Amino acid sequence: MSDVKPGTEVVTAALLVIGDEILSGRTKDKNIGFTAEYLTAIGIDLREVRVVPDVEDEIVAALNALRKRYTYVFTTGGIGPTHDDITADAVAKAFGVPIDVDPRAVALFRERAPNLELNEARLRMARIPAGAALVENRISTAPGFWIGNVIVMAGVPTIMQAMLDAVSGKLATGVRMLSETVRADAREGDIGTPLGEVAKANPEVIIGSYPFFDGQGPNTNIVVRGRDPDKLAAARRAVEDMLAQIKR
Amino acid sequence: MSDVKPGTEVVTAALLVIGDEILSGRTKDKNIGFTAEYLTAIGIDLREVRVVPDVEDEIVAALNALRKRYTYVFTTGGIGPTHDDITADAVAKAFGVPIDVDPRAVALFRERAPNLELNEARLRMARIPAGAALVENRISTAPGFWIGNVIVMAGVPTIMQAMLDAVSGKLATGVRMLSETVRADAREGDIGTPLGEVAKANPEVIIGSYPFFDGQGPNTNIVVRGRDPDKLAAARRAVEDMLAQIKR
Repeated sequence: MSDVKPGTEVVTAALLVIGDEILSGRTKDKNIGFTAEYLTAIGIDLREVRVVPDVEDEIVAALNALRKRYTYVFTTGGIGPTHDDITADAVAKAFGVPIDVDPRAVALFRERAPNLELNEARLRMARIPAGAALVENRISTAPGFWIGNVIVMAGVPTIMQAMLDAVSGKLATGVRMLSETVRADAREGDIGTPLGEVAKANPEVIIGSYPFFDGQGPNTNIVVRGRDPDKLAAARRAVEDMLAQIKR
Repeated sequence: MSDVKPGTEVVTAALLVIGDEILSGRTKDKNIGFTAEYLTAIGIDLREVRVVPDVEDEIVAALNALRKRYTYVFTTGGIGPTHDDITADAVAKAFGVPIDVDPRAVALFRERAPNLELNEARLRMARIPAGAALVENRISTAPGFWIGNVIVMAGVPTIMQAMLDAVSGKLATGVRMLSETVRADAREGDIGTPLGEVAKANPEVIIGSYPFFDGQGPNTNIVVRGRDPDKLAAARRAVEDMLAQIKR
């Protein structure tokens, strides 16, 4: 990652959520929203998310598609001690590297949980693809890992969040995407055309329009995003002027 | 869809969530979890989810990848009246069909909102790809639509849910995936190996293991899923016997 200079480029990421329980609806994902907000805050643009089942071919295919396209790919889920935890093996397969019980992960386990039996199931959590760095887990015993541009994290939100904290200082980051929200106090359909003109006149920012229901009825939040504070401020002013014009 | 007989086959789906606001973390998606649970309940297996930005090429590519693989593709987001609402045009492009203001959608609008000006922005919401059927929206004015095996819905959760209700009776459905949860009252690492043996001995069900923290410490939910109630019951008994054995 040393070829990406902090603050000078756009750094991108994808998130790959792995797990049948998300697709069946049994578990409601909390990692997408958290990761999106977290990466945006540190200057990494989350560009795509995929959710795939616990099926090796699906994980491998998604991982190989995503890791070619984005600076980083984060994965969540599938690194526990049971038969349905197949992420580490799928990652090794995607990278074409061997995978085995890693002495560093075993040492961590013995240090962190000296009273737990290091049985076959727990040794499964110490299987790490060759060439990967471990990612610290300060919540429980099993580490995540980082191989190439892929960062493999747990699915349990508290653990995933701790792993994101553990790697974030080592990630290349770009110029942060800044964001400002203007509450329109108008229906989206009443401002759509002039807002489109503002967007056209300010091509270096991204203007989004998000309808919502407030106490009285339909309302709209207009979100202006950009990396240049001056251009962002100018676009925000243009949005506010447009709204004032409409209400006059 | 008439070639899929209800109750005799596996019916699959993908969900394509369209919107910068999900990827920036500004809006926390609620549609993935809702759709997952809804489709599972009516006998459709959600197999994949993708979240993509408001970028036409990304929407078209994801849509074309997904609609070839699954019985249905549901999309959420990007069908409003503003310049960043580009889903309808992207769908038309993916299918290679023309798109224009649809008289049926205009008539709906006039009927539902006679007091609102049908301006250029609102007419944008009436742009429907040629050959699509409209999907009723009982919450606000703009319809969703259904073309080929793709069902295009709003991003606002209440409206999306109403649209899912409007189409669900017309969807082909398969044999429902049934699910039973057994609370292990054990650490995942202590049951991983015998649980793997139960999974191997019951290949016609899917057994998932989900760690969680209860009041006392690490615990595990074991979820057994399958379409055949007898096989499901047998697998559940095997899981319970395994747990009883371990605790003995």
